[in-house]
Amino acid sequence: MNYDTGAILVLSGPSGAGKSSLIKKIEPEIGDYYFSISTTTRPMRAGETEGVDYHFVSMQTFEEDIENEHFLEYASVHGNYYGTSIKPVKKALKEGKLVLFDIDVQGHDAVRSRLGDITTSVFITTPSLHELKKRLNNRATDAREVIDNRIKMAKREIQRISEFDYLIINEDLDQAAKHLTRIAKAAKLKIPSIDISNFIRQWEENE
Amino acid sequence: MNYDTGAILVLSGPSGAGKSSLIKKIEPEIGDYYFSISTTTRPMRAGETEGVDYHFVSMQTFEEDIENEHFLEYASVHGNYYGTSIKPVKKALKEGKLVLFDIDVQGHDAVRSRLGDITTSVFITTPSLHELKKRLNNRATDAREVIDNRIKMAKREIQRISEFDYLIINEDLDQAAKHLTRIAKAAKLKIPSIDISNFIRQWEENE
Repeated sequence: MNYDTGAILVLSGPSGAGKSSLIKKIEPEIGDYYFSISTTTRPMRAGETEGVDYHFVSMQTFEEDIENEHFLEYASVHGNYYGTSIKPVKKALKEGKLVLFDIDVQGHDAVRSRLGDITTSVFITTPSLHELKKRLNNRATDAREVIDNRIKMAKREIQRISEFDYLIINEDLDQAAKHLTRIAKAAKLKIPSIDISNFIRQWEENE
Repeated sequence: MNYDTGAILVLSGPSGAGKSSLIKKIEPEIGDYYFSISTTTRPMRAGETEGVDYHFVSMQTFEEDIENEHFLEYASVHGNYYGTSIKPVKKALKEGKLVLFDIDVQGHDAVRSRLGDITTSVFITTPSLHELKKRLNNRATDAREVIDNRIKMAKREIQRISEFDYLIINEDLDQAAKHLTRIAKAAKLKIPSIDISNFIRQWEENE
């Protein structure tokens, strides 16, 4: 029996909180899922791959897609567009998959307002701002300005934690991954992710 | 660090769906919890123990407690009262514990309307009505009339599944216990179960 209609798991939180490492760690545990790849107009950076890091498109293509309502959510950041195409998300949900999003607080807001019923959201953060700064500085791959921007954004985003369903304080990666796996697996048991009227009909059949 | 303010996990579902076996199975897994014992005015039955199965009280005591607003929820069934005292629940929440309830759909409604923010609820059922009848008949401990009543109630309760957060179809006990453990552990990570303003204040400290 399968009454699955798919579910959405939104992960947000400051850059440096360890979202990517967490996602990699829970991948083998959570079964059939689809990781939503964002579309952007910003230029591809060294080491990035089309279709893995982002879908890279032109400004014109992006704006046509906006007009044709192809985006579940989109935003303009520093003159570049970032968005989530709705088509692959719908397809994955139809297949009963868990759809994973790594998006910011704004994006979560947009997804929740359109697909709130089947959405579970998790805010992932470091134990402290101090620890976040330490981790960002230790990466040493980013320019001072980029780091400062991320810290500014983190301070803003942390104020909006209460818009989320769950909080994970990523102090110990293994422990945090365990928490996230539980939440991800539970997300698929959420009532709105199940075709209830169909379930009740079949439950009562051949009594 | 502990921002825990406790959480509530409500389990509902037809008698015969295996709630008690499930609770016994997840007990060692879910950490510090308090199982809410109902208070009733119905006479103690053979094999039952005061404080384990129920708190057994007189009609007069129960009605005084109603008047003094000592109940989180209560109902009258076949001339007997059943209720949940609010005091031990508050105490357990204060200690940051997970409070487990095994109550009916009506009781869930009452708990949710008073403590909805920190409540996670799970409807547990057999794969089918046919299977429920089979299990109830196989128990052979209950009178025909009791079984018929339970089936009638199950048919009524199943219509209200969508009031719950999660659905567990108890086809395989081990699998169902795994699901329930995940939900129970995730319940404590729910944002309203965490003292968020305290968390943000401490998060920003000594930056």
